[in-house]
Amino acid sequence: MPGTLFGVGLGPGDPELITLKAARLIAATPIIAYPALPGTESIARNIAATHISASAHEIRLDIPMTRDRAPAQAAYDLGAARIAEALDCGQDVAFLCEGDPFFYGSFMYVHARLAPHHTVEVVPGVASVMAAAARAGLPLTARNEVFAVLPAPLDDKTLRGRMESANSFAIVKLGRHMPRVRALLNELGLTGRAHYIERATLPDERAVPLSDAPQSAPYFSMILVTKGADPWL
Amino acid sequence: MPGTLFGVGLGPGDPELITLKAARLIAATPIIAYPALPGTESIARNIAATHISASAHEIRLDIPMTRDRAPAQAAYDLGAARIAEALDCGQDVAFLCEGDPFFYGSFMYVHARLAPHHTVEVVPGVASVMAAAARAGLPLTARNEVFAVLPAPLDDKTLRGRMESANSFAIVKLGRHMPRVRALLNELGLTGRAHYIERATLPDERAVPLSDAPQSAPYFSMILVTKGADPWL
Repeated sequence: MPGTLFGVGLGPGDPELITLKAARLIAATPIIAYPALPGTESIARNIAATHISASAHEIRLDIPMTRDRAPAQAAYDLGAARIAEALDCGQDVAFLCEGDPFFYGSFMYVHARLAPHHTVEVVPGVASVMAAAARAGLPLTARNEVFAVLPAPLDDKTLRGRMESANSFAIVKLGRHMPRVRALLNELGLTGRAHYIERATLPDERAVPLSDAPQSAPYFSMILVTKGADPWL
Repeated sequence: MPGTLFGVGLGPGDPELITLKAARLIAATPIIAYPALPGTESIARNIAATHISASAHEIRLDIPMTRDRAPAQAAYDLGAARIAEALDCGQDVAFLCEGDPFFYGSFMYVHARLAPHHTVEVVPGVASVMAAAARAGLPLTARNEVFAVLPAPLDDKTLRGRMESANSFAIVKLGRHMPRVRALLNELGLTGRAHYIERATLPDERAVPLSDAPQSAPYFSMILVTKGADPWL
């Protein structure tokens, strides 16, 4: 019998925000796979480390972050082939995913390659957006409000339109787009409703009103904006 | 020293999707509060049941679900006053929340009443949207795609506009709006991209293409639509 691939959400970074199911599966699965930036420790593996059995075999996928997608695609092809080999030998594999596997997660690229011919089970995780709201003490959305997640690399016109039409929203993947996003929020009069959160739930986390945020933002940061009732009663 | 109020996300329903942190806090906190529909078991308490200490004192908030919001507001006023009394006596209180506390959660109404004068810590949970995507085996959103959460009670014009402008979206709070939402999706040519998920991660869960979905939907159901690349490579 071929093995099962588990796509295991690990949550935003605090190892205590792993679910009981994820912890059980990681400890019980003989093969643990995870992505990493070449030359660095795997963030996903670090979150899950205490649960990984000393006897587990590990498959590390080195995924380059380049503008050209071909090198990353080749790395996912290779990683998927290694995982498929283990599954075909009848072994289960747990693929470790920061946050939630199907929410802007790298697991989706593994899933696309393996789901057509293998048994896959996805274990959802705490998404970074919910973690950021919790750490900022910011109720995100209630009742019949529209909530949107907006990647910062989108063009100004698209971002502006979506910012206007949602009651609350998260702007993710800030990085070098931070100054442009701040200018847009300012133009729409939303700066006072905006919070900046960096590395939510990690020891070096920062959660501040956007007006107190740094000029440049790392990859693991986001802005949350709520236009809803404050407070909701 | 006054106590701390913990808003504890429990995830979508499977008790194994509670986080390690939530399980630890529930077991260690002397007072456990939770909402319930009058005359029924509390869904939140049922999810967390195995972690609640036998010696815990429980504060049950009976919250009526009526169109007029005044009775629910009065119930939250009363519940918040009881929780405040415990906090003022120096005891910690864990408030149990299905899903994530700040994502369409009833905890927000408790938070609004208590956060101004008490110490509150929110523990994020697995949101039902991510759980539904996992159970449907449906990669939700990737790269620079816009993801939106749309409550079904919104009017047709608003729903249509938001459905058109997002790359993928979840329609929540379906209930009696199910036929109208189906008609809108059909009109936009999106039925073939839509999945229906009911009671995600619970024993009686159902996850099917929308074309196979029932005519009426319970409260704990949603539709997920993805227009993105299929599969993402």
